[in-house]
Amino acid sequence: MNPFALIRRDPSSRARLGALTTLHGAIETPCFLPVGTRGAVKGVEFARLEEWDCRAVLANTYHLMLRPGIETIRRAGGLHAFIGWNRAILTDSGGFQVMSLAARRVLSDEGVEFRSPEDGTAHFLTPERAMELQSGFGVDIAMALDVCPPFPAEREEVERACRLSLDWGGRSRRSFQGPGLLFGILQGGTHEDLRRRSAGPLLDLDFSGYAIGGVAVGESKEAIRAITELSAGLLPEAKPRYLMGVGTPADLLASVRAGCDLFDCVLPTRNGRMGHVYTREGEVTIKHERFKEDLSPLDPECGCPVCRRHSRAYLRNLFVLKDFSAPMLLSIHNVFFYLDWMKTIRAAIEAGALGALRAPPDGKIADPLKPVRDGHPTSGP
Amino acid sequence: MNPFALIRRDPSSRARLGALTTLHGAIETPCFLPVGTRGAVKGVEFARLEEWDCRAVLANTYHLMLRPGIETIRRAGGLHAFIGWNRAILTDSGGFQVMSLAARRVLSDEGVEFRSPEDGTAHFLTPERAMELQSGFGVDIAMALDVCPPFPAEREEVERACRLSLDWGGRSRRSFQGPGLLFGILQGGTHEDLRRRSAGPLLDLDFSGYAIGGVAVGESKEAIRAITELSAGLLPEAKPRYLMGVGTPADLLASVRAGCDLFDCVLPTRNGRMGHVYTREGEVTIKHERFKEDLSPLDPECGCPVCRRHSRAYLRNLFVLKDFSAPMLLSIHNVFFYLDWMKTIRAAIEAGALGALRAPPDGKIADPLKPVRDGHPTSGP
Repeated sequence: MNPFALIRRDPSSRARLGALTTLHGAIETPCFLPVGTRGAVKGVEFARLEEWDCRAVLANTYHLMLRPGIETIRRAGGLHAFIGWNRAILTDSGGFQVMSLAARRVLSDEGVEFRSPEDGTAHFLTPERAMELQSGFGVDIAMALDVCPPFPAEREEVERACRLSLDWGGRSRRSFQGPGLLFGILQGGTHEDLRRRSAGPLLDLDFSGYAIGGVAVGESKEAIRAITELSAGLLPEAKPRYLMGVGTPADLLASVRAGCDLFDCVLPTRNGRMGHVYTREGEVTIKHERFKEDLSPLDPECGCPVCRRHSRAYLRNLFVLKDFSAPMLLSIHNVFFYLDWMKTIRAAIEAGALGALRAPPDGKIADPLKPVRDGHPTSGP
Repeated sequence: MNPFALIRRDPSSRARLGALTTLHGAIETPCFLPVGTRGAVKGVEFARLEEWDCRAVLANTYHLMLRPGIETIRRAGGLHAFIGWNRAILTDSGGFQVMSLAARRVLSDEGVEFRSPEDGTAHFLTPERAMELQSGFGVDIAMALDVCPPFPAEREEVERACRLSLDWGGRSRRSFQGPGLLFGILQGGTHEDLRRRSAGPLLDLDFSGYAIGGVAVGESKEAIRAITELSAGLLPEAKPRYLMGVGTPADLLASVRAGCDLFDCVLPTRNGRMGHVYTREGEVTIKHERFKEDLSPLDPECGCPVCRRHSRAYLRNLFVLKDFSAPMLLSIHNVFFYLDWMKTIRAAIEAGALGALRAPPDGKIADPLKPVRDGHPTSGP
C-alpha cells in the first residue's frame, strides 16, 4: 500500500496536500522537518516541537555514525529511543556530509572512503553500509546513498555523480531491510538534460518517495527554483517529493507550488544562533541599533512563546551581550515560524487559496520593522 | 503589615517555613531564586520556570544599568514588562559586581565611581542612585547598596566595608521610594565581632528583610557555614533572611537549618553550561567516558523534562560535540533540580521531618553513577 495519500490538489499550481504514513505517525504534507544533526534541534526542546504539532525531524547519518556510532544507538533501542523523540525521523544517507565535511575522501565506484576530521579514524561508506546504518537507527524515512556534485562543477563530474547516484540508488534499494521507507535521490546539478536522463532509471527502482538532491549548494536563487520545478515535474505524482536542504520561507512556498512535499533546512536554527530572525515582513538582524527601544515582538502576528512574551529590545540586548539565552530564544522563534508557515501553506491549499498566498520577502529587510503597540501594527503617519 | 509570615518552625533546627508577600505574588520560603543576570535565566525559558512553580528570579542591577540602561527599562514599563516575567523579581544593588567586574573603580564615602569595561562610559553608583535604579525597575525586592570586601582582606578593609555598608544602608533606607520591599545587608567578612557589631545598627534601620552578604567570596566551606550560622542568628526572627550567592544543594540545606529563607546562586546555570550536573548522588561531569553507553537519565528520580526524555549517553554525546542544545538541556535539569530540592526541603519542614533529610554530597562524585534500568537503580552484582 502506498504510504503517501494525496488529499487535495491546488488548482493554481502543482501544489498538493498529502499525508505520509510512517512507523511513528502520519506526516501532513507539505511539511518542514527541523534539522537535528546529532539528534537535537539546536536550541529547541523536543517538547516544544511536540507542542507545535511538529511530526518529523531530520538527523544526519554522517554525524551519528561517527559519534556516538551505530552500536551505541542500536543498544539504546534505535535512534528514536536514543534521542528521546517518538515521532517520525528522516535521516540523510551521509553522502553529502562526507563530501563536504570529512577528511581525505576517496570516491570510487564502490563507495567513499574517508577519515573522521575529529579523530582520524577510517570509514568506508557504501550504499550497503548507508542502508545498514539507517536500518540500525530504525528511522522512518531512510535516504539512498548518492553523490552530490559540488557547484560549480565540470559537466563530466556531474555526469559521474549521476551515474554513481543511480548505481548506488539501485544498490541501496536492493540492500535496504527497513523498517522505514526508502527514498531515492535525483541528481543532475543544473543540467536539465542530466536531470531528465536520470529520472527514468531512478523511477524504475520504485522507491517509496523521491528527493531532489544537489540543490542549494551554491547556485543562484533562479537556478534553484528552475531545477526544483524541472525535477519535481520528473518525479511521480503519487509519491512524496522531498526537496533537500531548501530554503527560505519564500523558497518553501515556491517549491510547494512546484509540487514538493517535504523540506529540511538549517536556516531557522543556524540563523537563530547568528541573530537573524524570520518575520512576516522579511528577515531581520536583531543586533541592529534600531531595535534598541523597540518594544514590539519579533513578529507581531507570531504566536510563538518568544513573541508572546518578549520584545525586540529585550532580545536585542541579550544578543548583543552574548547571553546564552539569546540564540536559544531566537531559534525557538525561527523554528516555530517555519512550522507555522507550513501550516499556513497547508491551510491555504485546503481552502483552495494558495494562489493568493504571499511569502515573506527573501533577504534582510532594509527598512525598520513597523513599530507596533499592543501587538498590533500602528497605522503609519 | 509584615509582608513575611512565618508558617511553621522546624523542631530540629532554626529552619522555618514562611511566605513572603510581594507585588507579584507570594514566595514560599525557603526559596531558591534562579539567576537572570540580564533578565534571562541562561538556557531556561521563563515558561519552564512558571511550569515548575518558580515564584521569583534575581536580576543584576549592575548589568541592567549598563545595558539596556534604566531609561529603556522605564520606557518599557519596568523590569517585569521589559523581560516578560510577571512574578517576583529581586535585584541586587550593583555594588558587588561593580567591585568585581567594573574598570577603574574609585570607592569613596559618597559612593563608587567606575567605568563600563565594555564602552568606557563613566558611572557613579551611590546608595541614592542604586535606589533610584531599583525603583525605576519596579522590582519586588530591592537591596541596599553595600560594600562587599574581598577575601582574603585586611581587617581594616573589612572594617571600612562594614562602616560604609551601614552608612549606605541608612542612605538607601531613607531614599528608597518603593514600590517593592527593601532589604539591608549584613557585612563583616569572616570576623565574628564585626558581624555582631554591625547587626545592631543595621537592625535599627528596620528593613523589610535582611541579607547575609560577603559570603562565598573565596572562604572555605567551613567558614561559609560558620558565618552563615552566626549571621542568621543575629538577624530578626520575624523578617526574611536572604543568603546571597550560596551555594550547592548541601549548602542550601545547611543554610536553611541555620535559619535562612532566600537564596540565589549561579551554580545551576553556570555549571549546566560547563557540563556539570546535579544529581541526588552528587555532582557529575557529563563528558566523562563512563557515560558513553549509559542509557539512564541524569538522575533517575528527577522529574525534569530532560530526565524524563533523555539519557546520560545522549547528553554526553551532545556535550562532547559542543552541540548548542547540550548546555541548554543541562541547565534546564540543574535549575529544575535546585527548585525541586527547595520543594523537598519545604515539604520536610512542613512534615516536621527536616532533621532526617540528607543532602546530595558536595563535590564531584568519583564513582560511576549506578546504572539504572527503566528509571530504577539496578540492584548491584
